[in-house]
Amino acid sequence: MSPGRLETFADGVFAIAATLLILTVDGAVGGHGADLAASLRHAWPAYVGYVVSFVTIGIMWMNHHTVMGLVGRVDRRFVLANLGLLMCIAFVPFPTRLVAENIRGDGAQSAALAYGFTLTVTAVFFNLVWFYAERGRRLLRDTADPRVVAGLNRTYLPGPWIYLGATLVAFASPTASALLYLAIAALYIFESSLFGGRTASD
Amino acid sequence: MSPGRLETFADGVFAIAATLLILTVDGAVGGHGADLAASLRHAWPAYVGYVVSFVTIGIMWMNHHTVMGLVGRVDRRFVLANLGLLMCIAFVPFPTRLVAENIRGDGAQSAALAYGFTLTVTAVFFNLVWFYAERGRRLLRDTADPRVVAGLNRTYLPGPWIYLGATLVAFASPTASALLYLAIAALYIFESSLFGGRTASD
Amino acid sequence: MSPGRLETFADGVFAIAATLLILTVDGAVGGHGADLAASLRHAWPAYVGYVVSFVTIGIMWMNHHTVMGLVGRVDRRFVLANLGLLMCIAFVPFPTRLVAENIRGDGAQSAALAYGFTLTVTAVFFNLVWFYAERGRRLLRDTADPRVVAGLNRTYLPGPWIYLGATLVAFASPTASALLYLAIAALYIFESSLFGGRTASD
Amino acid sequence: MSPGRLETFADGVFAIAATLLILTVDGAVGGHGADLAASLRHAWPAYVGYVVSFVTIGIMWMNHHTVMGLVGRVDRRFVLANLGLLMCIAFVPFPTRLVAENIRGDGAQSAALAYGFTLTVTAVFFNLVWFYAERGRRLLRDTADPRVVAGLNRTYLPGPWIYLGATLVAFASPTASALLYLAIAALYIFESSLFGGRTASD
Repeated sequence: MSPGRLETFADGVFAIAATLLILTVDGAVGGHGADLAASLRHAWPAYVGYVVSFVTIGIMWMNHHTVMGLVGRVDRRFVLANLGLLMCIAFVPFPTRLVAENIRGDGAQSAALAYGFTLTVTAVFFNLVWFYAERGRRLLRDTADPRVVAGLNRTYLPGPWIYLGATLVAFASPTASALLYLAIAALYIFESSLFGGRTASD
Repeated sequence: MSPGRLETFADGVFAIAATLLILTVDGAVGGHGADLAASLRHAWPAYVGYVVSFVTIGIMWMNHHTVMGLVGRVDRRFVLANLGLLMCIAFVPFPTRLVAENIRGDGAQSAALAYGFTLTVTAVFFNLVWFYAERGRRLLRDTADPRVVAGLNRTYLPGPWIYLGATLVAFASPTASALLYLAIAALYIFESSLFGGRTASD
Repeated sequence: MSPGRLETFADGVFAIAATLLILTVDGAVGGHGADLAASLRHAWPAYVGYVVSFVTIGIMWMNHHTVMGLVGRVDRRFVLANLGLLMCIAFVPFPTRLVAENIRGDGAQSAALAYGFTLTVTAVFFNLVWFYAERGRRLLRDTADPRVVAGLNRTYLPGPWIYLGATLVAFASPTASALLYLAIAALYIFESSLFGGRTASD
Repeated sequence: MSPGRLETFADGVFAIAATLLILTVDGAVGGHGADLAASLRHAWPAYVGYVVSFVTIGIMWMNHHTVMGLVGRVDRRFVLANLGLLMCIAFVPFPTRLVAENIRGDGAQSAALAYGFTLTVTAVFFNLVWFYAERGRRLLRDTADPRVVAGLNRTYLPGPWIYLGATLVAFASPTASALLYLAIAALYIFESSLFGGRTASD
């Protein structure tokens, strides 16, 4: 198994999971017969959920490429950790639908917990992937800059805790929890827009 | 993140979004028990919607490759703009179903507005992708021909306005609006068939 | 647009269309509560349809690669012809479901006609792709062997007529028509198993 | 057809089949209105099925790459055997749903048999792919180490028998059969975690 093969498969799962999110929106708007304009307005949490989950999967994909750009070789344990990560990514459309359908109703807390729990476990697997490769520079390229590696350590480590925090907020207020998931995605876009002007060539 | 990686991911989303369009057709024809011949005839807007959206996604994909062929390096802002574009492309199957199901009924106006609004925002993101790369030749290859670049500027800039115009027509007549979406796709095919004989080698 | 890009996108659509066929089988077997063993036995046309359509899409994919292996450059008209072909390939899961659900009922004729019509148009687009590239060796590599090219001309040309014939049989007997679609796929496998021992290296 | 093309198509089918597994989970949890927390708890077999099938498809994908890494050329019979394998892989989401929905009810035996039968046939096709390439070193690279080849022979040959055994257990106890499918996947992960530290470079 070469790093390139793993990336192709991972790209496929990321792309499919992101694209399947539209089924959530599709399911939120009733068929013909209903008042379509009202139905479209009523479905707004599905649009927000679509955008937040698409951006979150997109961010994970960007980070995954950052990792794979530093990795020069892979072993079976590393591939297994990646399978675990991809299993979480492919799971995201499910809690996205739960939140979109239930955030205004009785199931809001369960839905927000399911969404946050999924993202927390995803972030744990992401750290497993990274730190397995990074520990003792086990799988890193010889050319991987130690300062870049140290920077990623600082960036990725808080991920599970941030999502765990946002998840636990759902016990007090599911709406606040959902707003936190949105804020995390928005912050990343804002930060990338401010500082994301460094280029990588072909 | 290299341009090649971005293209692989983008190709995946384009291909999946186009292929998922068939679910619209599938949902428009009832199960066994119904009069299948009548049901197949009655579902004609779904076939038209399938073709128009497939061609529209295909055109966006071709244009995206034209852009990526001129881009020699990427930064995080550019990747984010691309994520926004792909988020719109993956959204297209949803308004396609709305139009297919509602163009003959009460929801025609809402459906045509939703379809046009999606394509307008898609065209805006496409311009964001292109002009972010093109401004001051920020991300272009050194070999990118200035006349080709100027030609693309002229070609892409009217896109959002054309789709916005077709969208606003829906306030007067949803049917006319839908015919305009069809005409835009048909025009592109016609123009490519007339002038599309220039080749690109491997 | 390079031939390589076109192949990546085409591979994506072929793979997704083939994989989405499972939704036909999934829809043919009821949920819990029903007598599952009886339900699984009763759904046999869905399994046959899954296999026949998967093999048919697989054959088209293999032939598409034979064509792309001889093509050294592409133009926009060629890409458009390919989009038309892929639009047909992505359509196949729909008539597959129609046949699986209706071949034993009143809708058998409509379903068999829809399936055959789809494959006939697919074969027409396949010929359009091939003969546009082949005519006057417009897009062929200089190294493309004229005898191989002549052999493909003889192989691909009857395709639409064979599928049209099998389609028209549905007016007399939908079952005979469905058996012909099965026989065409089976024949190809049989012929490849007998004569398919020539290798291509990396 | 080059080995590289075959791998791209295969990677696509593996990735899509794995990602479509989420539809099983999605279907197991009812819409709004129901008691979501209870519904989420009640759906636990769907989560287990998701993980077991995702891991099983992931293992098949890893083994497929091991095979393709030793294969230096392909012929049409080999591609056909691969199509058969991919047809089985794309089928897996269907019996996964059957087990998830029925393992606690009347249909448990039918569901466990369908799941086991699918994996048995998948393992048969996997052996067909491998032994067709390996017999007389027909399609192997000249550099393929005979000891590695002999090792894979020993590893892959028992696969169909193991799955056939687990399938037949369903006649006595569907639950025991399902636990065996889980144990096979878990064993592989455990074994890879212990011994999977050998690396492959780019």
